[in-house]
Amino acid sequence: MRLLAFGDSYVAGVGDPEHLGWVGRALAGRREVTLYNLGVRRETSREVGARWRNEAAARLTAAEPCRIVFSFGVNDCHQEAGAPRVASAQTLLQARAMLAEAARVCPVLFVGPPPVADAGVAARTEALNENLKLLCARLKTPFIDVFRPLAADGLWVREAAAFDGAHPGAAGYQRMADLVAAHPAWRNLTLPLEP
Amino acid sequence: MRLLAFGDSYVAGVGDPEHLGWVGRALAGRREVTLYNLGVRRETSREVGARWRNEAAARLTAAEPCRIVFSFGVNDCHQEAGAPRVASAQTLLQARAMLAEAARVCPVLFVGPPPVADAGVAARTEALNENLKLLCARLKTPFIDVFRPLAADGLWVREAAAFDGAHPGAAGYQRMADLVAAHPAWRNLTLPLEP
Repeated sequence: MRLLAFGDSYVAGVGDPEHLGWVGRALAGRREVTLYNLGVRRETSREVGARWRNEAAARLTAAEPCRIVFSFGVNDCHQEAGAPRVASAQTLLQARAMLAEAARVCPVLFVGPPPVADAGVAARTEALNENLKLLCARLKTPFIDVFRPLAADGLWVREAAAFDGAHPGAAGYQRMADLVAAHPAWRNLTLPLEP
Repeated sequence: MRLLAFGDSYVAGVGDPEHLGWVGRALAGRREVTLYNLGVRRETSREVGARWRNEAAARLTAAEPCRIVFSFGVNDCHQEAGAPRVASAQTLLQARAMLAEAARVCPVLFVGPPPVADAGVAARTEALNENLKLLCARLKTPFIDVFRPLAADGLWVREAAAFDGAHPGAAGYQRMADLVAAHPAWRNLTLPLEP
């Protein structure tokens, strides 16, 4: 199986001393899975939307099952010049376009954005997380909500505050990986039942 | 620092149960380095040459130092219809074009191809490795030769034979990572001296 993960710096695992991030950690021990980690720092839904198609085309294969995971949103909620970098309605349009197109190629999963320390960004991200969840329900795209448990737990934000203000360390990424790996949507995606 | 690694399945770390590959292992503990692992299975120099520019453009930044690592060659040496997938002269032309163009953007390193079990592919890869080394010397691009030590050691090829015939496991990738991380060219690339 090949798993393509598109998104932002959290997908890339920025700040993880082991260079795994939550995606690599959620696939620990699964040596039969080829992971293509295609997270890019600072990217909003707009930049992911602009590149995912070409980067996927170079990596998808008919030789074995493929899966695509998307995870973005925090960067959309950061402000520039007094307004969010991408308005919520635009993020949802971008997400809908990507999810619909990707679903025509292979099974797709959306993993919601993690929490952040900045109160304003966190509030917008929480609202966007809810809207992304509703969108995914409408599209019948599996969605994993990590925002609430990571925010309630506090470890993620504490580690981020101690590093660069945005990215946690090994323990924070492991916490997110544990949430993802334990979710039925992840198991359905990565461990298909034998026919 | 951001490190972009372009190449084939060995760069991607296919078969590594920890999803690190030699690149991730060579950067262990370096949480200030953002790793973009852009290895893709089955790719020859031709496919890497066709995509590296666009994928690099999405990831390079003026915000901090960037580095590009290339590593390919084994897939060029595999035969299809009685001939290597890419003739040695073509591989060298592709490599020269990539290295010259990338060097105009940021410091660049070439890591030579690892050994393989198949005798014919191994012989062609060994010859190509020598020619890539000569090319890099002419271009003044740092080159790390892993073919000889990994072949002499035997672990890499044994692990590959026990898995899918091509890709080692954690120990093989760690052996290659140790060779790379101990090389002055890697240290120069990833640990620039303070001014």
